[in-house]
Amino acid sequence: MYIYDHGGNAAFENGKTGILDLSASINPLGMPGGVAEAIARATADCTRYPDSLSTELREKIAQFENVNPDWIFCGNGASDVIFRLPPALRAAKVLVTAPAFSDYERSARAYGSEIIRYALSAADGFNLDDGFVETAKAEKPGLMFLCNPNNPTGVLTGVNLIERLLECCNQTGAYAAVDECFLDFVENAGKLTSKKLLESHRNLIIIKAFTKTFALPGIRLGYAICANAAIVDGLRAHGADWPVSALAQAAGVAALDGADDYIKRTVSYVSAERAIIEKGLTGLGFSVFGSKANYLFIRNPYAFDLCGELDKYGIRIRSCANFHGLDSSYYRIAISTSDNNARLLTSLTEIVSRHS
Amino acid sequence: MYIYDHGGNAAFENGKTGILDLSASINPLGMPGGVAEAIARATADCTRYPDSLSTELREKIAQFENVNPDWIFCGNGASDVIFRLPPALRAAKVLVTAPAFSDYERSARAYGSEIIRYALSAADGFNLDDGFVETAKAEKPGLMFLCNPNNPTGVLTGVNLIERLLECCNQTGAYAAVDECFLDFVENAGKLTSKKLLESHRNLIIIKAFTKTFALPGIRLGYAICANAAIVDGLRAHGADWPVSALAQAAGVAALDGADDYIKRTVSYVSAERAIIEKGLTGLGFSVFGSKANYLFIRNPYAFDLCGELDKYGIRIRSCANFHGLDSSYYRIAISTSDNNARLLTSLTEIVSRHS
Repeated sequence: MYIYDHGGNAAFENGKTGILDLSASINPLGMPGGVAEAIARATADCTRYPDSLSTELREKIAQFENVNPDWIFCGNGASDVIFRLPPALRAAKVLVTAPAFSDYERSARAYGSEIIRYALSAADGFNLDDGFVETAKAEKPGLMFLCNPNNPTGVLTGVNLIERLLECCNQTGAYAAVDECFLDFVENAGKLTSKKLLESHRNLIIIKAFTKTFALPGIRLGYAICANAAIVDGLRAHGADWPVSALAQAAGVAALDGADDYIKRTVSYVSAERAIIEKGLTGLGFSVFGSKANYLFIRNPYAFDLCGELDKYGIRIRSCANFHGLDSSYYRIAISTSDNNARLLTSLTEIVSRHS
Repeated sequence: MYIYDHGGNAAFENGKTGILDLSASINPLGMPGGVAEAIARATADCTRYPDSLSTELREKIAQFENVNPDWIFCGNGASDVIFRLPPALRAAKVLVTAPAFSDYERSARAYGSEIIRYALSAADGFNLDDGFVETAKAEKPGLMFLCNPNNPTGVLTGVNLIERLLECCNQTGAYAAVDECFLDFVENAGKLTSKKLLESHRNLIIIKAFTKTFALPGIRLGYAICANAAIVDGLRAHGADWPVSALAQAAGVAALDGADDYIKRTVSYVSAERAIIEKGLTGLGFSVFGSKANYLFIRNPYAFDLCGELDKYGIRIRSCANFHGLDSSYYRIAISTSDNNARLLTSLTEIVSRHS
């Protein structure tokens, strides 16, 4: 049987079950205004094929990202973009970090690529270093995936290191996919994005999605940005035609109206809540790594199973036991609404006091 | 630049432009009742991940198709299913008919499979014969695609021939994908489907979609049916996770409520209209092949370009010039509503009389 080992299927509090799901890291501000109306308006158009090229949506994304619309491929979630990359680039070998989002390896396995893992070290705070560039030089993968900030650690990689990686890739004919799906939650994202490297580095592909940023996992909408037209065409050719439904295209266009303000409010809200939870978790004895994203990455110093204990309080978090390079002492916890975060801290306080 | 060479992007009459699009063959009865409401209800759930396994939808499809829900994989349109097949089956060689729906070859090319084409002959009315089975025996492809009824010809292949093919495949370890996306438009579909072969032939995959049957190309929803659990799992693993949006899952569930009656009305409507257009086209001198589907496949005996002429009347049909095995004298015309079909025949009458 197919094993589903991602984060949870629900986002935050489920009214029907009372379960608070902090295993998936979705924008706590919720769906942007106008999206529901846009979906309702687009429903009548569903008797027609959607625009296979997502033309209007790409124009809006181009404005939002400040890039050329021809550089954009829109797919059925970031996952769709990730699965198209190995075949589109004919990557016989794929380099990933460990830990990292599991879809990178899944996509490589699906195409039959050999997988090389570069281990990030807990002692170094899971920071990426130049050893990754050296590994890329030595192993000559056709494609490498980097998540910035990394999932599940929330650790950022500097643009300088990514530039060195791209220079190195250029010599070996390799491509680098930088997944920035969580970058819009980070303060000063404009300075941290690799977008500025796109024009000068045709071997760079940036992956983004509406899923987390705009709290829209249910519509399935992600995209790639790449200044290399052959790769954008390749992404189109290496998966389903009409990858984005008419409803998702309409939702995406609507979400981008007023996106700058929505994201500004998001970053401010998430930063404030992150600081509160981080302080609370540290006070309870948990090791909190320095995540800059909308989730915290922690290590449980206690003998109890944190998922199991929180489950009794109707709270789900993401065990990181099945990430390569981690074990069952690591967890990822989404930053949710203020009320939900308070519920988490109250529950954790009870759990820790009961076990000490 | 990526070449988009499928049928048109619009379905039937576009209110904004007045263009009548008969290049895509969508159910003329339109979206089933209840679908729009289901999409509206599901919109609030879009802040959560969709069920990656489409559990409720698969239950409904299982009832509709009278198969086991575990035999079903739901994807982002039939196109998604088609693109997952070559990598899921590690098919180094793929056998297709010429002509056939172009996505079969696209998917094979995307995975890097060698493509073998079995030519259907106009003289034989584009009927598939045992030569296809012999070719499968000789070439030993890992996967073969068969469209039943075939797109664009509308010609049916008998279940006996498909059974012989499956027996032959079984000896060579090959898989056969039978695309029945247009079968629900055919009279006596229950007798013509290969579903009855699923349980006894674990190398058979049936492809279906909501796109044409339920006039829902905009939502992107297709599925595979296969009694081989390893293949169903393989389809899940060889493409994006969460392949079907929450909106498409809800739409699909709603479309299947009362589906039997909707399809009965569809078949009756399409059959009556097909007979009228067929008679009209034959009377005007066009060669009409015996399509059993919701489109007609014709050959233009005149020197004029039929697409160009109909374009002047605001009508689009599908030139079959870019199908392997066909040329610019072949066209596929969707069966639309009675009014639209009458508009087509009136326009064609004027065109032919002007040129004779």
